[in-house]
Amino acid sequence: MTFVIPLAAASHVADVLTDLFVVLLAAKLGDELFKRLHQPGLIGEILAGVLVGPAVFGFAAPGEVLEVFAELGVVFLLFWVGLETRLSQMLAVGRSAAVVGALGVILPFAGGVAFAFATGEPTATAIFVGVALVATSVGITSAVLIELGALDTTAARTILGAAVIDDILAMLLLAVAVGLGADGGLDIVSLATTVALALAFLAFFALGGTRLLASRPRLLHAPQFSESPLLPAVLLCLGLAAFAAHIGLAAIIGAFLAGMIVAETKEQHPIEEEVAPLYAFFPPFFFAFIGMQVDLGEFVEPETLGLLAAITLLAVITKYAGARLGARGLGPHDARVVAIGMIPRGEVGIIVAGIGAAAGVVEGQLFAVIVGMSVLTTLIVPPLLRRALANAHPNRHTSNSAPGDG
Amino acid sequence: MTFVIPLAAASHVADVLTDLFVVLLAAKLGDELFKRLHQPGLIGEILAGVLVGPAVFGFAAPGEVLEVFAELGVVFLLFWVGLETRLSQMLAVGRSAAVVGALGVILPFAGGVAFAFATGEPTATAIFVGVALVATSVGITSAVLIELGALDTTAARTILGAAVIDDILAMLLLAVAVGLGADGGLDIVSLATTVALALAFLAFFALGGTRLLASRPRLLHAPQFSESPLLPAVLLCLGLAAFAAHIGLAAIIGAFLAGMIVAETKEQHPIEEEVAPLYAFFPPFFFAFIGMQVDLGEFVEPETLGLLAAITLLAVITKYAGARLGARGLGPHDARVVAIGMIPRGEVGIIVAGIGAAAGVVEGQLFAVIVGMSVLTTLIVPPLLRRALANAHPNRHTSNSAPGDG
Repeated sequence: MTFVIPLAAASHVADVLTDLFVVLLAAKLGDELFKRLHQPGLIGEILAGVLVGPAVFGFAAPGEVLEVFAELGVVFLLFWVGLETRLSQMLAVGRSAAVVGALGVILPFAGGVAFAFATGEPTATAIFVGVALVATSVGITSAVLIELGALDTTAARTILGAAVIDDILAMLLLAVAVGLGADGGLDIVSLATTVALALAFLAFFALGGTRLLASRPRLLHAPQFSESPLLPAVLLCLGLAAFAAHIGLAAIIGAFLAGMIVAETKEQHPIEEEVAPLYAFFPPFFFAFIGMQVDLGEFVEPETLGLLAAITLLAVITKYAGARLGARGLGPHDARVVAIGMIPRGEVGIIVAGIGAAAGVVEGQLFAVIVGMSVLTTLIVPPLLRRALANAHPNRHTSNSAPGDG
Repeated sequence: MTFVIPLAAASHVADVLTDLFVVLLAAKLGDELFKRLHQPGLIGEILAGVLVGPAVFGFAAPGEVLEVFAELGVVFLLFWVGLETRLSQMLAVGRSAAVVGALGVILPFAGGVAFAFATGEPTATAIFVGVALVATSVGITSAVLIELGALDTTAARTILGAAVIDDILAMLLLAVAVGLGADGGLDIVSLATTVALALAFLAFFALGGTRLLASRPRLLHAPQFSESPLLPAVLLCLGLAAFAAHIGLAAIIGAFLAGMIVAETKEQHPIEEEVAPLYAFFPPFFFAFIGMQVDLGEFVEPETLGLLAAITLLAVITKYAGARLGARGLGPHDARVVAIGMIPRGEVGIIVAGIGAAAGVVEGQLFAVIVGMSVLTTLIVPPLLRRALANAHPNRHTSNSAPGDG
């Protein structure tokens, strides 16, 4: 027989529990500190991750377990956002969201590829830089919108819809980038199949799932499942997240759909109250984990800092311009909110850089720069978004609808 | 620079989310099925783990991530039990708990060592068999007591107190067993230091922590921490669990202490409501993970089955007799409840077998037998305990105080 390592030797358990404790404590303290300074808490959580991570003190290393907690963090974050979103509201902003998503992909991609060519990178690397500049981290923007109590606005829904389009296009571009780098070259048929599958998944669950639960809202609870609908709802979230990830989409798109589906039953049961503790527990790991990816060691060279500044500026300007152009029909205030909300690259840029590194086309300095760009675009957005929202909805910027604790 | 693997390549995320989904779904279905058959849900969860694990279908493998979720499952389970327990109640049963714990350790250890010697095992192996028969899995008994609504009884508190004593003695015996197997031999000074540290930890947090929060119940919330006390409470739980594990105790003892400390503030805030979703989410992984350790392949030989039957019988009889003798002052009904409640070995027997396997003194057949004994002692207890409780408290066996969903 092969030995299954059982519930862990004591020292391993102690180490994992300590990592979880240190990261959660640091994130919570960062959150508290920034809220007292009247700044968005998630910035404090990301900077806490930089501090406890390898970049500064090295109290905790970003290993597999923390990675899974971070992933569940953003999964439960988007599940929460889905719970607050109705399909009808999403469909109402569908057209402008599609245009925002498309233009917000084309400009950064073109800009990133052109810039990388201009600095002498080979084609495969240039395409990865373009893709890394593409994908918006809707997790970050969602968290800011929740913190500012602005999730229930046209601008917020446009951002969410655009992020779904954005993710599909980013998946497509990433598949092209990986295909071009691989030996077999680009396989158009499998690419088309993947996209068709993704669209079918979205349509099936967004339309069918919400309709099913709207017509049979008690499907998630008694008598099929005893007591509370929490676990059935969480299972739907995990299941659709896993399925989305298997067909090449971001797991959070599945979680968002699951939230929207469960939302159709919410008159029947205040499911948010039960999800809130999971929402309070997991997402701090997500924000801290982003900070833990930062490698300050690379930035001692002025040249690297210059490259970071240039790519970050390019990422901000191209995304802002593309999204702003796409959202111009919403009026200047909302268009600005949408355009700012699309800026954060967060974990998505880091993932693309990591895939490029694994493929051997994104090397040390460039990897650190893309991670730095992802974190910087994430850190500048919360204050900008708050100011833009305060102008758009003068009565809103002081409210705080963060559930549980956050 | 070294590459930090970023938030995971998509396929890895998909696989981990799928494992979590499959295990949670199976556990939930097992729980539902057994509840409908009027059986304890946790038996369904353990058997679901056997089914999805390597023993039968192999849908999910017990890897590091599931192990951590299982560990957090039993940590949050004992945290919940601590929330329902007051220190004064524990101190009131202190003396009988100590006797139950001590006698419930001595008899199984002596029986296990004698049996192993009789079947021709060498000394190092015999001592591991003895230790594996010692430690009670208080997680299992606690879950049954919660399910039956019997946590708030003298018998339940005696079991919890005895389990703490039991764990300290088991730690001591395990250290002796590992020390005898190691090259350097047994280090009495470091052993005494470890035990002193464990006792100091218990006394300091049980007495000091509860007193501090009883006198300053708002310490966990405003203005030190904004909004809800959930994260501070969870941090205390993770921190004390990690600390307990670092000094060689079970992590769950730290979690139990943390729960008792937080319980002192609970008039101020209904913290249970917020912990309930974490309690609903994590423990199913614990029960399913126990089932996933089972290796049915070893039991095709009649000889192995015979050994399993003999060791299981020995484990049940020695623990029952020792605990029953220790609890005789509580009257026959409560003494029987306490004695049955101490029987399950659950994850603790599996851990000891795993440490013995890692040390090279517990081999294939014996490992499978100890795991099988741990699972069997766990599966027989819920129905026995329910019957014993129904006799002791005729009005209690129908109530169900399981929080969230369970």
